[in-house]
Amino acid sequence: MEQRISAITLIVPDVAEARRFFEEGLGWQVNASPSPEVVFFQIQGTVFALYQREALANEIGRAVTDQPSGAVTLAWNGRSEQAVDEAFEQAVAAGALPVRHPDKAFWGGYSSYVEVPGGHLLEIAYNPFWPIRADGAVELPPPA
Amino acid sequence: MEQRISAITLIVPDVAEARRFFEEGLGWQVNASPSPEVVFFQIQGTVFALYQREALANEIGRAVTDQPSGAVTLAWNGRSEQAVDEAFEQAVAAGALPVRHPDKAFWGGYSSYVEVPGGHLLEIAYNPFWPIRADGAVELPPPA
Repeated sequence: MEQRISAITLIVPDVAEARRFFEEGLGWQVNASPSPEVVFFQIQGTVFALYQREALANEIGRAVTDQPSGAVTLAWNGRSEQAVDEAFEQAVAAGALPVRHPDKAFWGGYSSYVEVPGGHLLEIAYNPFWPIRADGAVELPPPA
Repeated sequence: MEQRISAITLIVPDVAEARRFFEEGLGWQVNASPSPEVVFFQIQGTVFALYQREALANEIGRAVTDQPSGAVTLAWNGRSEQAVDEAFEQAVAAGALPVRHPDKAFWGGYSSYVEVPGGHLLEIAYNPFWPIRADGAVELPPPA
């Protein structure tokens, strides 16, 4: 499981409010917002995302904290569905708890979630819409 | 405030256990661990860190959640103390809540914390030990 983090996602109650802070307040450029529940920014070779709390809870089938300092998911993206299966098995063998087994995801990819020691969520996914460069960086399509 | 994230820090109850997962379980290479409470990994142009929950609570003077999916801090590093002061003021003007005003930090840098809309912690810091490349990436010194 190559040493990389493909996405950092802040789980928030109000995506529009958090988006305004980063976009209008700090002047950061949004790359895409395919639905009101999610916003993507390109940060060097990583994706920084805002995602609505109930949407994540529905996706993984368990509650997500609303206590400070909030919730987050990390993502590791592989280059194929097989790479996801292998990384998921490696993570579980290393002591992570399975949360969502690898399967087709509603957004068109192939995704799984584990809980790593310490309690955080790590998504392990294949995303055919987010190319991975040779150095492991994620490259989002340019803003529409 | 240039569009970048300099560090992603998972806040964990047991740093040694979380380190074992990433280092031995996944095979990731630790860059440094200046104290038992903290571990740094270089991930492309970002630092991925593990940090002990009570150590952060002491540093910022408030409680940190122990509920799933855990706590996290993001960091934005500037190139000078003045850049930190300016970014802190910009963040607060944009709606972030001040948590720790810019000041000398115990680790030798200059640091502040704000709470961004959604409840997450954003550290805004100048770290003289972590050079920032022209493209904004952080470059950790090589492992000792």
